[in-house]
Amino acid sequence: MTRGKTPRRLHLNAFLMNTGHHEASWRLPESDPYAHVDLRHYVRLARIAERGTFDSLFLADGPQLWSNLAQRPAGALEPLTLLTALATATEHIGLIATASTSYNSPYNLARKLASLDIISGGRAGWNIVTTAGAEAARNFGLAEEPAHAERYARAAEFLDVARKLWDSWEDDTIVADKAAGVWGDDSRIHPARHQGTYFSVAGALNVPRSPQGYPLLVQAGSSEDGKAFAARYAEAVFTAQRTLADAQAFYADLKSRTGRAGRDPGHIKVLPGIVPVLGSTQAEARAAEQLLEDHIVYEHGVGRLESLLTLPAGTLKLDERLPSELPPESAIEGAKSRYTLVVELARRERLTVRQLIARLGGGRGHLTFTGTPEQVAGQIETWFTQGAADGFNIMPAVLPSGLDAFVEHVVPLLRARGLFRTEYDDPRQTLRERYGLPRPAHPYPTPAPALV
Amino acid sequence: MTRGKTPRRLHLNAFLMNTGHHEASWRLPESDPYAHVDLRHYVRLARIAERGTFDSLFLADGPQLWSNLAQRPAGALEPLTLLTALATATEHIGLIATASTSYNSPYNLARKLASLDIISGGRAGWNIVTTAGAEAARNFGLAEEPAHAERYARAAEFLDVARKLWDSWEDDTIVADKAAGVWGDDSRIHPARHQGTYFSVAGALNVPRSPQGYPLLVQAGSSEDGKAFAARYAEAVFTAQRTLADAQAFYADLKSRTGRAGRDPGHIKVLPGIVPVLGSTQAEARAAEQLLEDHIVYEHGVGRLESLLTLPAGTLKLDERLPSELPPESAIEGAKSRYTLVVELARRERLTVRQLIARLGGGRGHLTFTGTPEQVAGQIETWFTQGAADGFNIMPAVLPSGLDAFVEHVVPLLRARGLFRTEYDDPRQTLRERYGLPRPAHPYPTPAPALV
Ligand SMILES: Cc1cc2nc3c(=O)[nH]c(=O)nc-3n(C[C@H](O)[C@H](O)[C@H](O)COP(=O)(O)O)c2cc1C
Ligand SMILES: Cc1cc2nc3c(=O)[nH]c(=O)nc-3n(C[C@H](O)[C@H](O)[C@H](O)COP(=O)(O)O)c2cc1C
Repeated sequence: MTRGKTPRRLHLNAFLMNTGHHEASWRLPESDPYAHVDLRHYVRLARIAERGTFDSLFLADGPQLWSNLAQRPAGALEPLTLLTALATATEHIGLIATASTSYNSPYNLARKLASLDIISGGRAGWNIVTTAGAEAARNFGLAEEPAHAERYARAAEFLDVARKLWDSWEDDTIVADKAAGVWGDDSRIHPARHQGTYFSVAGALNVPRSPQGYPLLVQAGSSEDGKAFAARYAEAVFTAQRTLADAQAFYADLKSRTGRAGRDPGHIKVLPGIVPVLGSTQAEARAAEQLLEDHIVYEHGVGRLESLLTLPAGTLKLDERLPSELPPESAIEGAKSRYTLVVELARRERLTVRQLIARLGGGRGHLTFTGTPEQVAGQIETWFTQGAADGFNIMPAVLPSGLDAFVEHVVPLLRARGLFRTEYDDPRQTLRERYGLPRPAHPYPTPAPALV
Repeated sequence: MTRGKTPRRLHLNAFLMNTGHHEASWRLPESDPYAHVDLRHYVRLARIAERGTFDSLFLADGPQLWSNLAQRPAGALEPLTLLTALATATEHIGLIATASTSYNSPYNLARKLASLDIISGGRAGWNIVTTAGAEAARNFGLAEEPAHAERYARAAEFLDVARKLWDSWEDDTIVADKAAGVWGDDSRIHPARHQGTYFSVAGALNVPRSPQGYPLLVQAGSSEDGKAFAARYAEAVFTAQRTLADAQAFYADLKSRTGRAGRDPGHIKVLPGIVPVLGSTQAEARAAEQLLEDHIVYEHGVGRLESLLTLPAGTLKLDERLPSELPPESAIEGAKSRYTLVVELARRERLTVRQLIARLGGGRGHLTFTGTPEQVAGQIETWFTQGAADGFNIMPAVLPSGLDAFVEHVVPLLRARGLFRTEYDDPRQTLRERYGLPRPAHPYPTPAPALV
């Protein structure tokens, strides 16, 4: 798995989410329940991640307010806005914003992402999502959520348009000849001229080509359509995998799909999510986990589970298992792969509804690595060296303390094992370069004038 | 014109535009032709304006790339993105972003503006524009620009939806009761439930109510529809006025319209744009202006003027006047009031096309105050005390030097005359408070529970 002389290095992304990924984290004495709307909280988190030489940080998002505000912090600063503020508070770390292809216009979104890439000096990334759920649809003039396949068809066309826009300026369009009074070279502008099924966009983008050409393209769909999309467009993939075997299968599948799509399989990085729960002994780590579980309000979880499984309210009983008859994944128009992950977890481990909620409360289906720093570093190494991951999406149960603990105690072990960078390389390295990916070449550069 | 004991104070807004408002400014030796995509340039400008205790700074915008890159810097960082970065580099100054009601969704834009208001601690403003021109329309799936009246009808509905969204959380929705496990009070959430002609938006915004309730609402339309819109919604108005008499008429008209719309006329602030060109003598100031005019490429200006006047290419001759037959304003679907302003200027001052271009090159129709600091301060005082302005939109011909000169030489005179603040008041004052406007009350707050 090593390439030539450079040892293969793992990539770490910090998935930031208000007071932490555990749904009860906001109830701990250390947590600030207003953290999710406080820039200082995110600045602090970004600086911890940068101290840990993480590749990037990431904000999830969806354009709807989930009902039931009682249960946990709701609402959030819009990710592109927040990440722009973080760009000025950090120097190296990549900034990955979630934005929906179903509920944005390509022109506006491409512009904002290019602006963030320029402002941050080449550190922008885009987590491309198609956004499940009728709640979001109804905030944008639709009565119901568009079908899953249609959302992905629109996403593909969205990416085609966005790339045309990002390539609408050649890298050297600006001439800046003051004496001649010529600022830019109009012949190096390539209007999008796109006429498609979902979009028609005529012009060029109103911002020059950005340091990375375009933001790092990240994706997290795990359905068939989602994986096909990732193979075609994504440069990094977030995924929820619960066992080493599942993760290996997913990894191999995605790399081979990417090859079949005509791309270099090395140019898609697979990052499973993990929720590290640390203690200086295994018992201490387990106690930290138990403390969080004790703060879960289980009644809240039941309603959420019923809605995920498309069951009528009142179907599930806390101390019983899931009903044996459940709809097949093909009948789900929302988050298909999440549905299957949850059902399989419950079946495989024969969990009651209460136990299932406790397991999901910690990371919504992502794998929890509970133990000492050595144990967690060991699990990371195993997954990384056994063909399950190119890196990890680190989802601390409690923030900032969980990220701080990971940086203080796990990162040094990963460095000592030669798995992870000890410092950032060239400070002008872009996010894409940090992930070991090439800058996209401009597709139709004007040839340099012949010397006469 | 004084209210009680507080002397009436003027308001200053810095209109930032790459290397300056003069179209030839980028050609001066001091100018950086890449400034428009350099965050440091804008940070520097924002800090100069803050040193001058300006109320706010402002970025114009349109979602299209104007062709003819040869003539001047084109493309720009998206304003909301750039202003978020500036929020972290400044402490007091208001941040006014232009965004279009014709080419955005209310849900996304309301969310971003609320996020900026939270991140900046209550310093966000929105310059509401309807966006003229087919170029923009064609970037958003339309073949032609929507009719002027239709754009304003959509703008009004957009504002209604946006305010419903900004009011969808009461101010005290967050309960944060850790012991009881209750984070928020669902009964204080008011979904938009909007079904209209242009928009249907069901849910609540996914961000809490911001410090100002919602951003300061600014507008700059000068047509009949534009003024009617301003009277109904705007709290500050940017306008291009060329004579004291015109400005007085506009001021009186807008205040009385605002009263007729059922609002307090004191709650709309009128800010004409001025291009200050300074010199330590009048001759020096005139020489600075001449230097800029000498850098204009007049051939570029002809095409722009023909397109504004909807004339076929080749109609205008540089050393002749405008043709006597021109279409009436009612036939113009683009920027109606700008059309009229330009035609009237040319007719009133009997300008040749070349002279007209020179006059427009400096501030695109805004008034140029050329002279010594004393003269410029005097003109400002006259307009302010003679019922023509509540403050000014300062549009330096060259940036940063023109803003710096204004802050160094004119602001102290305005302060000495008691017309302008000498320092920022309470550091936690919001932008709206700085403009002397009340915070919008929540329209349907839940009554406090009765004490039992
Ligand atoms: C780590 C991770 C983060 C995700 N973040 C988001 C998000 O911010 N917004 C969103 O709508 N979906 C998010 N998703 C969901 C995926 O984009 C996708 O919709 C989901 O995995 C279901 O896959 P499918 O769409 O292919 O059915 C995330 C998924 C994972 C694994
Ligand atoms: C100082 C000033 C700034 C303006 N900024 C913008 C802008 O950023 N984007 C835009 O589309 N229009 C801008 N406008 C144009 C107005 O919004 C409006 O379209 C124009 O005055 C024509 O008025 P009408 O739309 O009522 O016909 C600006 C106008 C003025 C006076």
